[in-house]
Amino acid sequence: MTFSPATLIAKKRDGGEHHPTEIHALIEGFQDGSLADYQMTAWLMAVYLNGLSDGEMTALTKAMLHSGRVLNPRRRNGAPRIDKHSTGGVGDKISLPLAAIAAACGLHVPMISGRGLGHTGGTLDKLESIPGYDTQLSIQAFERTVAKCGASIIGQTTDIAPADKRIYALRDVTGTVACRPLIVASILSKKLAAALDGLVLDVKVGRGAFMKDRASASALAKSLVQVSTKLGTPAVARLTRMEEPLGRTIGNALEVRESIEILRGEGPMDTTELTLTLASEMLLLAKVCHSRSHAMRVARAALTSGAALERFAQMVELHGGNARVVERTALLPKTRFQVPVHAPQKGFVQHVDALALALLALELGAGRKRAEDKVDHAVGLEIFVQVGDRIEKGDLVAKIHTRKHDPHHSRAVLQAIGVGAQRVERPPLLVGRAIR
Amino acid sequence: MTFSPATLIAKKRDGGEHHPTEIHALIEGFQDGSLADYQMTAWLMAVYLNGLSDGEMTALTKAMLHSGRVLNPRRRNGAPRIDKHSTGGVGDKISLPLAAIAAACGLHVPMISGRGLGHTGGTLDKLESIPGYDTQLSIQAFERTVAKCGASIIGQTTDIAPADKRIYALRDVTGTVACRPLIVASILSKKLAAALDGLVLDVKVGRGAFMKDRASASALAKSLVQVSTKLGTPAVARLTRMEEPLGRTIGNALEVRESIEILRGEGPMDTTELTLTLASEMLLLAKVCHSRSHAMRVARAALTSGAALERFAQMVELHGGNARVVERTALLPKTRFQVPVHAPQKGFVQHVDALALALLALELGAGRKRAEDKVDHAVGLEIFVQVGDRIEKGDLVAKIHTRKHDPHHSRAVLQAIGVGAQRVERPPLLVGRAIR
Repeated sequence: MTFSPATLIAKKRDGGEHHPTEIHALIEGFQDGSLADYQMTAWLMAVYLNGLSDGEMTALTKAMLHSGRVLNPRRRNGAPRIDKHSTGGVGDKISLPLAAIAAACGLHVPMISGRGLGHTGGTLDKLESIPGYDTQLSIQAFERTVAKCGASIIGQTTDIAPADKRIYALRDVTGTVACRPLIVASILSKKLAAALDGLVLDVKVGRGAFMKDRASASALAKSLVQVSTKLGTPAVARLTRMEEPLGRTIGNALEVRESIEILRGEGPMDTTELTLTLASEMLLLAKVCHSRSHAMRVARAALTSGAALERFAQMVELHGGNARVVERTALLPKTRFQVPVHAPQKGFVQHVDALALALLALELGAGRKRAEDKVDHAVGLEIFVQVGDRIEKGDLVAKIHTRKHDPHHSRAVLQAIGVGAQRVERPPLLVGRAIR
Repeated sequence: MTFSPATLIAKKRDGGEHHPTEIHALIEGFQDGSLADYQMTAWLMAVYLNGLSDGEMTALTKAMLHSGRVLNPRRRNGAPRIDKHSTGGVGDKISLPLAAIAAACGLHVPMISGRGLGHTGGTLDKLESIPGYDTQLSIQAFERTVAKCGASIIGQTTDIAPADKRIYALRDVTGTVACRPLIVASILSKKLAAALDGLVLDVKVGRGAFMKDRASASALAKSLVQVSTKLGTPAVARLTRMEEPLGRTIGNALEVRESIEILRGEGPMDTTELTLTLASEMLLLAKVCHSRSHAMRVARAALTSGAALERFAQMVELHGGNARVVERTALLPKTRFQVPVHAPQKGFVQHVDALALALLALELGAGRKRAEDKVDHAVGLEIFVQVGDRIEKGDLVAKIHTRKHDPHHSRAVLQAIGVGAQRVERPPLLVGRAIR
C-alpha cells in the first residue's frame, strides 16, 4: 500500500482527517494483508474516540462497498430498485409484508438481509421457518426472482462487502461496535451493493433498540441518508419507537404468521400502518408516487386487493418454500406447549419491556447468543397487550411458545409488563418527520 | 481469563479506571492467547487517547515485569545493585564509563541493555565494536561477571518481560509508541527484572530526544520515579538536554573510544561531568554516600585513580573481549576514509543539530533503520565544536568516518552546525534538580 499503516493510524489518533485516498488505501491494505488485523483494530478504536467526518464516512463506505461484488442487474423491466433497512428491533418482521407490498406496487425489492444476533431477530431466520424456503440463492437466481415477482430476500453472499464482514468481526471483540460512522459504513456497504435506486431506513430508537435516545438515533439517520445520497442512492429515514415489541409476536415462525396476517389485512393496526408508511416512502423515493397521500392509497390498495399476499406467496415459491403457508399458517413449525399467561391484577398497561421480552425469547431458543448457535424456529412469545390497554385480573396477556414448561418464564413475562392504576396514552410509533 | 477482553477494552475506551486485577488479567490473557493481538492494539489505542492512572501504570508495569523471569541474585557480597537507564539520545555512551565508575565505587551494576533503533544508538552495538565482546551471556555468567568486577552489560534475554517485547512490537506498527504510561511500563518492566536496589533515570529532553519539551520529559521522569518506587525500587531521575550530540562522537567504535577517554580523564568536560553526576546519584541511592558533594568526590576519585578504567578492562575481558583496547583504542574497527570538514566562514557556533547528525550517522551505517539491519561499527562522526565556540574560516569542525567518500555528507554536517555572528552561551546539560 502507498501509505504506511502506522502513519494512517497516527493521523486518526491525532484527530486528523483522512483524504479519501488514504481511506481507500486502508481498506485495500486490509484486504491484501499489508495492514494487519491488529492495525485495523487500533485504527477502529481511534475512530471510535475521534470520529470520522462526513467525507471520511462516505469514503469508508465506498471503499468497503467496492471491497466486493456490486450487482449489475440486467432484467430491470424499467422497475425502480428500492430496498428498506431497519437498524434492528424486537418483533420487527416488517421486511416480509413490506417487500410484498412494494413488489405489488411495481417496485423491485432486491433485499439482501442478515441473521439475528443477540436480542434482535433476523429476517433470514424468520423466512427459514417456512418449510423449504432457501435464503441462499445464487445472485443469478436472486435477480431472476426479483425480475419475476418483484421481490427476493436472501442472505449476504461471501462476495458482498467482504471487508465489512472481517471488520465487523473485529469490532465485535474490541468494543468498537457502538460507533456511528462505523455503523453507517457497515450498513450501507452491504445495502448499496444491491445497486439500488433508493433506500428507506427505519432507525429504531428506545430501550429495545441499539440507539437508546432520539439524539443519537437522529444523528445515525442523518448520516445514513447523507452518505447513501452522496454515493448516488437517494435515501430517506424514519425514526420509529422501539420500547415495546413491534406487533404481537416475537419468534421466527410466529412472526411469519403475523406477517401473513398483516398481508391478509388482519394484522395489528399500528404495525400495519408502519408497514404502509414505509411502503409509501419507497414509492415516493421511486417517484412512482408524488404525494404522501397518494402513495399511502397505492400501498393500501396492494394490501386490500390481496395483490401483496399473492406476491409473497410467489416469492416463497420461487425460493423453494411451501407457498400454501399463506393460506394455512398452521403449516409453520409449532411447539408442543403454548403456555398462557394471565394478568394477576387489573389496571392499565404502563409499559411492555421489549428488551426483557427479547431476552426471554432468546432464552427460549428463538435467537443466537453466539454466531454459531442454531435457532429454534417454533419458539417465541405472543403478547396480547399494549401500553395504554385496560386489563382485568385473569385476562390473557401473553402466550409462551416453548419446548419446556418453566414457571420462571411466566414470571419473566409478567415482570416485563408493567400494570398500574394510572391511565396512560400510547405514543405513536413514528417519531418526527422523514429525514432526507 | 476471568474478564471478557471486549469488556476490558470498552472500560478504557469509556475513560474508566482498571482495577489492578483487570490489568493483570489483560496481560495474562495476552500471554495465554485468550486476548488476541487485535484486542491488545485496540486497548493500547484507548490507553493512548484516554491515559492510565498512576495505579494502572503501576499495575501494568508489575504485570509485564512478572510476565517473565525476575532475577534472584545470590552472590551479592553485600553490594547494592544499582542501574541507570537513559531514554535515549545522540552520542549517549554514558552507560559504559558510568558502569565502570560505579563498580569501582563498590556498587553492583547489572545492566540489561538494548540495541539502537532509528536515530538513537544502542549500548550493545557500541560494546560489540570491541573485538570479542559477547553481549549474549547467560544470566548465570552475567551474575558471575557482576559479582567479580561489579558490572556487566548484556542484551535482553528472551525470558525477561516477554509481554513487553510483544507489546512493543505491536505499538511500533500501530502509532502507540509515544504514550507516557506505556513508555513507563516498558522501561521499568525490563529494568526491574534485574532485581535492583535503586535505579537512576537519565531522561533526555530536546530535538534529539524522544521528549521534545521539558513538560513532557518532566512528566515522564516523575512517572518513572513514582512507579519504580511503588514497586519497591527507589529511583531518581535527572533531565538532561539533548539538542547537541552528547560528547564529541557519534558511532559505535568512536563512542567506545570516547568512553575510554573519559575513563582516562581525557574525555570532553561536560560529558565527564554528567557521567560523574549520574554516578553520584547512584551512590546516593545506594546510601554509600549521604551528601552530593561526598558522592561526587568518591566518583571522581574512581576516575582519577584509574580504578574505573581497570574495572572497564576487567568487564571487557570477562565478556570475552580484547581488554587491550583500553590502552590501544587503535584496536577498535576503523574506516578507510576519515574525511575532514572545515568551517566555510568564521563566527560563533549557534547550534549543533543532534537529530540531523544522528540521521547522517544512520545513513553512514552506524545504526538501524529496521530491527533486522546490521550496523557498521566503524563508521560515524567526530564533532569538534560545541554551541558557543568561536571558530575561524578553515577550522576543522568535524571528521566523517566513512566507507565511501561522498561530498553530500560534508554538506550535511555543515548544515547541522549553525554559525553566526552573535556570541552565544551554551546552556548546562543538566535541566533542573533531581526528581525523586
